[in-house]
Amino acid sequence: MSGVLPRVVVIGCGFGGLEAVRLLSKAPVEITLVDRTNHHLFQPLLYQVATAGLSAPAVSAPIRHVLRKEMRRGNLTILQGEVTAIDAARRRVVLDRADDPGGNSLAYDHLIVASGSTHSYFGHADWEAHAPGLKTLADAFAIRARVIGAFEHAERCAEPAARDPWLTFVVIGGGPTGVEMAGTMTEIAQHTLRGEFRRIDPKQSRVVLIEGADRILGTFVPMLSQRAAEQLAKLGADVRTGCKVTGIDADGVTYEARDGETTTSHRLAAKTVIWAAGVAGTPLGRNLAAATGAQVDRAGRVVVEPDLSLRDHPEIAVIGDLAAAMSHGKGEPKPVPGVSPGAKQMGRTAARNLLRRLRGEPTQAFRYIDYGNLATVGRKAAVVDLGVPGLGALRFSGLPAWLFWLFAHIYFLIGFRNRLTVMVDWAWAYVTYERSARVVAEPPSVAPHSGF
Amino acid sequence: MSGVLPRVVVIGCGFGGLEAVRLLSKAPVEITLVDRTNHHLFQPLLYQVATAGLSAPAVSAPIRHVLRKEMRRGNLTILQGEVTAIDAARRRVVLDRADDPGGNSLAYDHLIVASGSTHSYFGHADWEAHAPGLKTLADAFAIRARVIGAFEHAERCAEPAARDPWLTFVVIGGGPTGVEMAGTMTEIAQHTLRGEFRRIDPKQSRVVLIEGADRILGTFVPMLSQRAAEQLAKLGADVRTGCKVTGIDADGVTYEARDGETTTSHRLAAKTVIWAAGVAGTPLGRNLAAATGAQVDRAGRVVVEPDLSLRDHPEIAVIGDLAAAMSHGKGEPKPVPGVSPGAKQMGRTAARNLLRRLRGEPTQAFRYIDYGNLATVGRKAAVVDLGVPGLGALRFSGLPAWLFWLFAHIYFLIGFRNRLTVMVDWAWAYVTYERSARVVAEPPSVAPHSGF
Repeated sequence: MSGVLPRVVVIGCGFGGLEAVRLLSKAPVEITLVDRTNHHLFQPLLYQVATAGLSAPAVSAPIRHVLRKEMRRGNLTILQGEVTAIDAARRRVVLDRADDPGGNSLAYDHLIVASGSTHSYFGHADWEAHAPGLKTLADAFAIRARVIGAFEHAERCAEPAARDPWLTFVVIGGGPTGVEMAGTMTEIAQHTLRGEFRRIDPKQSRVVLIEGADRILGTFVPMLSQRAAEQLAKLGADVRTGCKVTGIDADGVTYEARDGETTTSHRLAAKTVIWAAGVAGTPLGRNLAAATGAQVDRAGRVVVEPDLSLRDHPEIAVIGDLAAAMSHGKGEPKPVPGVSPGAKQMGRTAARNLLRRLRGEPTQAFRYIDYGNLATVGRKAAVVDLGVPGLGALRFSGLPAWLFWLFAHIYFLIGFRNRLTVMVDWAWAYVTYERSARVVAEPPSVAPHSGF
Repeated sequence: MSGVLPRVVVIGCGFGGLEAVRLLSKAPVEITLVDRTNHHLFQPLLYQVATAGLSAPAVSAPIRHVLRKEMRRGNLTILQGEVTAIDAARRRVVLDRADDPGGNSLAYDHLIVASGSTHSYFGHADWEAHAPGLKTLADAFAIRARVIGAFEHAERCAEPAARDPWLTFVVIGGGPTGVEMAGTMTEIAQHTLRGEFRRIDPKQSRVVLIEGADRILGTFVPMLSQRAAEQLAKLGADVRTGCKVTGIDADGVTYEARDGETTTSHRLAAKTVIWAAGVAGTPLGRNLAAATGAQVDRAGRVVVEPDLSLRDHPEIAVIGDLAAAMSHGKGEPKPVPGVSPGAKQMGRTAARNLLRRLRGEPTQAFRYIDYGNLATVGRKAAVVDLGVPGLGALRFSGLPAWLFWLFAHIYFLIGFRNRLTVMVDWAWAYVTYERSARVVAEPPSVAPHSGF
């Protein structure tokens, strides 16, 4: 039976790929889902793993476990592997693993590419070693090791002057991730580590957030950007907008600050720098474009048709962060923001359009439904911008926004168990200021930058 | 004030080092604790991290947090770093980190060495790459990645025959760790992964426990070894005693089986091999012996005087797994077993003897008080051997032993939060057969052996 079903390959089990698979598993198609990891990651809370507030299993779930119901329908195969190329002419996906000749490529009739995004250093590849970004659990562990390790390093310095760069933390990029990282790192220094060191006072540490534009959280209305900046400052972070980073090395960050027509160059001596400034489509996007004649935008995202397919390859759809997709609602088409609801909605549209094609029906254009925008700043601090149908915009900040953010994230977490874990961890952290995952697994020699 | 206090350096924050620091922090001494990680590890539950049952933060705690009360007494400095040598003549401990000349050595008046043990491959260093051991959180993550990855690898094999070695798991060594690993891996294959694969049936996998002696759990009475073997077999593990491993490579294990006077050679094709057979003192033991003229035994443990100090260096004590210590109770001195109560008791004795020396009093010989021995086999399966004063030996197995084991381990876990986490996780796992930490952080290419 399954031999005659159309073969669908889905690449990537993020928010978009997962939705597509869930929907397709109910249809008469034979699905193969390929992901390079064994888990679906709830990326909105990944910064909490990086800042030692949550353990990795709390914000992720094994793909096989998440999809166990769909597995029972009998038309889904899950393979862990890395897609190295797409052979659009032969309709095959090429996987890694040369040791298994029969298992290193997959034939498809329909393909959904949802491999997501990675960091972009705007042409400065050498910055990556000094300023890691945050996309995977491995990234989060590496950042956790650096942040925790920096305080340890400072405590070991015999020379007081040598301690300062270890106690200066720079976050580059004032989007939601940068704001979350800066706010949380301030809390660690001001509260969590209190009284736990002898030679240094963690409260003397500085967290600097550098943003190129004139305000942080540029996707929000200016009033909420302003509120977020005020809340960050109140927590103790040093927010510097209108500052363009021009260099990052092992000892710090160089940036240019604009003030009207004057531009001044500045240097921050800092051993810990986090990159939250730019994302780009995974390399598979350019590979796919080369194989299909599709265009990629400057951020390496694949330009798709209104129905999310490729112009000359209607059997291929690109969704989520890898797609340069437009929302086709009333009025002019608008770009879809790179947030999880966008990826989920694209996953559903791509799956439905695939089934429409199988039935010989015309496909439909993607329309993004925007339920709003929220970002947390830190303890009791967040901004929320909701579009409530019939009520217009609802905007608030501070404690109510923070509570809204908390419950929204717990609600959308996958798995009852993870929801329970995160709720208990957050309640505990709220009362005690402790962070439950302040453990660095690797002996420090594993972290290449720390040197001890 | 602190300049005139005797300087005590403690190396290692395992069970022994932690107890010594806790006791010494109440005395007029200036303590520096050095550990290569930032956490105290509850090693008896480390196998649960390796088998994806618990997250790393559940079985470990930041040293600074564990010792926050002691920190407040004002005479404790905690440094994260690796001790590379002990200069006993100059009474200095040499640390890594050449970049900080002032910070790379520590002067001491008294030294307690508690750096613990590592794996021993009995002269076969090449086995390590194929059969990792379990001592650190990094080890546990590596084993977790291999065990979870093996099922993923099997699912990707196009050739059914190629799957078998990926579905064969070998544990070498039938001590408590080996028994725990074998029992838990059986549970994963038989229950946890049920229904989550398409091409393979995890229940078809095999877990083989290889032990050189004639029975597993050799430190228990033969009756309990027998019970443990029966319980393991009932769970589905294949226990092979009297088998001596002669080779380990990337494709499996070769061993010789004794049967009376006949010895036969066997080969097990297995891609996942866990080493639980031998431990040895950390390399610092030999370094210390060379610096002080102390003896090391065959396992690299430092031979100590009855009071745990070194013969020609009464200012140095060695405790825990690094010490070849004897218990001086009634009758002949007996070797101290390498279990956590032994390390804790040595930590207290070493600290008390140090304070006795400061007061000019004679030191006392170490006496190990044996409260019993327990090991878990798997779900509802364990063996317990208690020495109850006045009642003699109390031995039991099966469900009562398992419950006793559960509560004893929760009781001795450090930190209320960890106790709560572990209790909730275990209750959840008991009901659902799920394992809460089935997430492998690294993309598989990081694990050198898996190749995908």
